[in-house]
Amino acid sequence: MTDSASGGDSGTAPPGPRRRGRPRRSPEDAGPGARERILQAARDEFAERGYDKTSMRGIAKAAGVDAALVHHYFGTKDDVFAAAIEISFEPATAVPAVLGQGGTDGIGERLARYFIGVWENPATRAPLLAVVRSALTNETAAKVLRTFVLRRLLERVAAELDVPDPTFRAELAASHMVGIAILRYVIKAEPLASADPEQIIAMVAPTLQRYLTEA
Amino acid sequence: MTDSASGGDSGTAPPGPRRRGRPRRSPEDAGPGARERILQAARDEFAERGYDKTSMRGIAKAAGVDAALVHHYFGTKDDVFAAAIEISFEPATAVPAVLGQGGTDGIGERLARYFIGVWENPATRAPLLAVVRSALTNETAAKVLRTFVLRRLLERVAAELDVPDPTFRAELAASHMVGIAILRYVIKAEPLASADPEQIIAMVAPTLQRYLTEA
Repeated sequence: MTDSASGGDSGTAPPGPRRRGRPRRSPEDAGPGARERILQAARDEFAERGYDKTSMRGIAKAAGVDAALVHHYFGTKDDVFAAAIEISFEPATAVPAVLGQGGTDGIGERLARYFIGVWENPATRAPLLAVVRSALTNETAAKVLRTFVLRRLLERVAAELDVPDPTFRAELAASHMVGIAILRYVIKAEPLASADPEQIIAMVAPTLQRYLTEA
Repeated sequence: MTDSASGGDSGTAPPGPRRRGRPRRSPEDAGPGARERILQAARDEFAERGYDKTSMRGIAKAAGVDAALVHHYFGTKDDVFAAAIEISFEPATAVPAVLGQGGTDGIGERLARYFIGVWENPATRAPLLAVVRSALTNETAAKVLRTFVLRRLLERVAAELDVPDPTFRAELAASHMVGIAILRYVIKAEPLASADPEQIIAMVAPTLQRYLTEA
């Protein structure tokens, strides 16, 4: 354990000359964007290092705040992780993008396109990397993935499907997307890593369509 | 770094009474099975802990040998990892099992069945877990996966295919298998984790068949 709940050492850049009479920085004056900065820093740290190697202190340092503030807002490292990840998989935005106007017509292509699009976007790639890197070596992270990604997202999609075992089918579709993400973006295996996204979507869309719609 | 190349501390079970006149144990008298015991211990350790948390000392302890012997046989931790993994992905056994007698007829089902079979077998699951857990957080392990698994195995399969971009197609098929393994065996996401292997093979085989044979 390199992490500690004591959190006294801020680890920020060296302070300027101490302003006389100014009280020790408290959560209320860390600025209105402090919570969002912490979440962004947490996403970056978890994405780059994985769950185990990320510390509360490292997140605080990257966010430019005191470690105590991270604890104040989020509690434990597990809680920061869940909060940092959850926002990226908000079903309110993802599910309509996949289901679209057309119900299950063309759902295979929309799912492939949505998923590849999220990975191709550097802003959303970081939290995804954080999840996959962390979930494979840490049970807390695995639980976050099971709970937030699979249960909330896939079951919402599965509810729209008219096939036997819809959650199983949605999960098979997800497994393909997860595997592509790992080989392309994490392992960087060629030729998949350099393939045109459209080439991937064209090949994969019929697979997803079959899983999600063909009994 | 908890690992060290000095390796003087054996970490084995407490020794019995010291036999007088017996020289310090040398590689030659560690027993004929020592090399295989080390490889097995390395597979177990890497599978359970991932690359970063596995140490040469831990492997030596699990194998019941002196850490110096691990260095003697294999050199660095990277080398032990590569050796422990390589044997599990020996193309000499995998490629015929997938290609079979029938060329590409039924190759989708054979690939799915071979892959699921390897994962369902506890003896072969450990090195696979070692690879996926390690490759996502460590560049050395990722390189082993790219080199031994993808290049050697997939290019051998791709050479038999009569489709455009055969390595890309084989890699897409592999990505699906990798994703299923991660959700089923690592994340243990339901309902996939408890699904009958035959149900998975039945759904996935047509996908793999299409990738590998349909232009």
